Amino acid sequence: MKNILVIGAGRSSSSLIKYLLDNSDRENWKVTVADVSLEAVRQKTQDHPNSRAIEFDINNEQQRAEEISYADLVISMLPAFMHMNVANDCLRFKKHLATASYVSKEMAAMHEAAKEAGIVLLNESGLDPGIDHASAMKVIDEIYEQGGQITLFKSYCGGLVAPESNNNPWGYKFSWNPRNVILAGQGTAQYIENGQYKYIPYNRLFTQTDTIEIDGCGKFDAYANRDSLSYRHAYRIENIPTMLRGTLRMPGYCKAWNVFVKLGLTDDTYKIEASDTLTYPELLEAFLPEGTQSTKEKLIAFMGKDMDAEIISMIEWLGVFEPVKIGIPNASPAQILQHLLEEKWKLEEHDKDMIVMQHQFTFTTREKKTKTILSSLVVKGEDQVHTAMAKTVGLPLAITAKLILQGKIKARGVIIPTTKEIYLPLLEELETLGVKFEEKEIG
Amino acid sequence: MKNILVIGAGRSSSSLIKYLLDNSDRENWKVTVADVSLEAVRQKTQDHPNSRAIEFDINNEQQRAEEISYADLVISMLPAFMHMNVANDCLRFKKHLATASYVSKEMAAMHEAAKEAGIVLLNESGLDPGIDHASAMKVIDEIYEQGGQITLFKSYCGGLVAPESNNNPWGYKFSWNPRNVILAGQGTAQYIENGQYKYIPYNRLFTQTDTIEIDGCGKFDAYANRDSLSYRHAYRIENIPTMLRGTLRMPGYCKAWNVFVKLGLTDDTYKIEASDTLTYPELLEAFLPEGTQSTKEKLIAFMGKDMDAEIISMIEWLGVFEPVKIGIPNASPAQILQHLLEEKWKLEEHDKDMIVMQHQFTFTTREKKTKTILSSLVVKGEDQVHTAMAKTVGLPLAITAKLILQGKIKARGVIIPTTKEIYLPLLEELETLGVKFEEKEIG
Repeated sequence: MKNILVIGAGRSSSSLIKYLLDNSDRENWKVTVADVSLEAVRQKTQDHPNSRAIEFDINNEQQRAEEISYADLVISMLPAFMHMNVANDCLRFKKHLATASYVSKEMAAMHEAAKEAGIVLLNESGLDPGIDHASAMKVIDEIYEQGGQITLFKSYCGGLVAPESNNNPWGYKFSWNPRNVILAGQGTAQYIENGQYKYIPYNRLFTQTDTIEIDGCGKFDAYANRDSLSYRHAYRIENIPTMLRGTLRMPGYCKAWNVFVKLGLTDDTYKIEASDTLTYPELLEAFLPEGTQSTKEKLIAFMGKDMDAEIISMIEWLGVFEPVKIGIPNASPAQILQHLLEEKWKLEEHDKDMIVMQHQFTFTTREKKTKTILSSLVVKGEDQVHTAMAKTVGLPLAITAKLILQGKIKARGVIIPTTKEIYLPLLEELETLGVKFEEKEIG
Repeated sequence: MKNILVIGAGRSSSSLIKYLLDNSDRENWKVTVADVSLEAVRQKTQDHPNSRAIEFDINNEQQRAEEISYADLVISMLPAFMHMNVANDCLRFKKHLATASYVSKEMAAMHEAAKEAGIVLLNESGLDPGIDHASAMKVIDEIYEQGGQITLFKSYCGGLVAPESNNNPWGYKFSWNPRNVILAGQGTAQYIENGQYKYIPYNRLFTQTDTIEIDGCGKFDAYANRDSLSYRHAYRIENIPTMLRGTLRMPGYCKAWNVFVKLGLTDDTYKIEASDTLTYPELLEAFLPEGTQSTKEKLIAFMGKDMDAEIISMIEWLGVFEPVKIGIPNASPAQILQHLLEEKWKLEEHDKDMIVMQHQFTFTTREKKTKTILSSLVVKGEDQVHTAMAKTVGLPLAITAKLILQGKIKARGVIIPTTKEIYLPLLEELETLGVKFEEKEIG
């Protein structure tokens, strides 16, 4: 019997834990699920005979060491900055680790020690990063194997609301950490286009967008992610002249979000004075020039050519022109915006979320023909619990954990799912679970 | 005899050291000047009989303790973050300290201990902060004493180039730390207007400017400083409905600087790829949308209504459209901009800089009349060494140090020059040295 320890039983662990328990008889697994909230664990394990539910304090060194030493493989669903204590214990007790988080500098530094210990520290094995790596590398490797030369790679992903559950003009509801949505894009987006490095600062990120079309799913706005450049190395396409990664939103979202950016309402670095007693229009007034017009008229004048009737109705739908008190003390502009949007963009019980991903590859064949491949994924959630987000984050993690325990992953040390021994069986099994890319060749 | 220890003999110490040596016979002072560069010290002390020049390493604990224990008063011209070691030694040996820096949290925490030790830790005793405090408090106290009620206080300061030395379209040359000029305003400006808190994020700081006029000196652009609100407490005007502090630039500067902000060229948080081999037009292209036009045409199109012929000529004057290599490796956009501007905005040997400051006070008299007082200061430098900046930073520090040594300042602990016992003799002596405010009452 193999012991799996899952740390973290939050919202995005539902599909992960379900997969592990569904496969536990065949694979002969005992699955321990650990969380600060025993209630959250029990909701997920449902007294499954192969499960063990424990209340867990990540800062309790003794309990952490005990549980990790008892496991064969640990899956950490903790926030990224909390992985290192777990990783160090995994190294100490020579246990495998799987996470859906980016490889941190500290994690990367453990590569040689982990290799020596004969363990796998698998990271970036969720959706984005995760499925994006696997699905992109499959096409990239195929093009190379056929003697092709890749000249362009653009990759987009978005966690959205499914059209059938979309009853708000933003086309958006929260299916993951709201704070990350509010702060998204802060910094400067860096990418490369036709051999030239390009930079888009935050102040115009949501105005310099592209339009992406996915068959049967319609059009989307895409804004550039902060970092596209480091993926050239990870994907073994160092000299590619055009490389961009971006985030997808429903059409109109970006130009409306730009209102908040331009106003300054996404800033999280200082607190608004008397934020609990202010109303939303008073908050807007604090960011708008003086004048005698209504708040709405002032906002329209302030945005100038960046405002249109659609944006106004989107902003108005949020209720910010109604004299409602914010009601939270000592809050930053970003915290106030999050507070408002968590109410307005709530995923309701029977709402379905939707994950969309598209890769674009342009390449020159051995015969010097230029071709383009579009590889697209659409996954819809079942409801508010079994979301597409939980599915696409949790299933790759569960499947790669299984591959490690089955001895099918030979690599050791700190790895990500960009190699064939991982991405081929991963993508194959994901297809059987309804997570399937559609490929289309153009030209 | 009293011993004064001056730590730091950089550019802005020239007037400070000159004043101390000029007054050393009368006051019976021995002035020790300490710096990592003995050469820099000797340039300032010029073998004056009451001077002692030493090579000094601020991190050498033994030397630091020795020199501070030997002194009666220490003046620290170090960067603000380096004051604390000095302050702690001053407390240990019960020596007075004077700096021109803002009171840090660490410094503020020493108040009670310093009071107990019977020493003065005087901070913010330079130009801004320093002369601004003293001159503002004089008017504020006078208004209160006459039974007036202050309804508006706006205060502006700028370190500029004197008109007679102004031979560039920006009207700007560096008279202090260039890096601070490049990064100025990052964050969100906060102030209060007619009882309403107002916020201006960085992305529109240089477009929401005011015009300030100083008699005999012309008009200036003013942009809001990051923090205006905390001064309400320091100036004992907690309930004032309008309070703003701002920075002055020559007309046109702000709207031209906005080009760099909008492009993203003031960002210091990441490095430009291959910055050493890029040319300036190539750098601009990296921030501009794709197109077939020239870099200049693209920039004009990009800025749209925020561009005019004057701005174009200002940008062009910097040489950024000429194919010159940047030549510095691994540089952030802000570092590249600083590198370019340090060459273009250099204060030449016989150039004169200029300090301008203006306070605006509106108040209701005991007889319910509304009046406004304008209090303005213009100081010009002599040359590149004896700058107005060095004079207005160094003289208040030297004078307040003298007042401490003469026993004329009774307060103990961490203080700033906002009380009568300091600002009255300080402003009086500054007048005799040519640093004189002109007051004008309106209405």
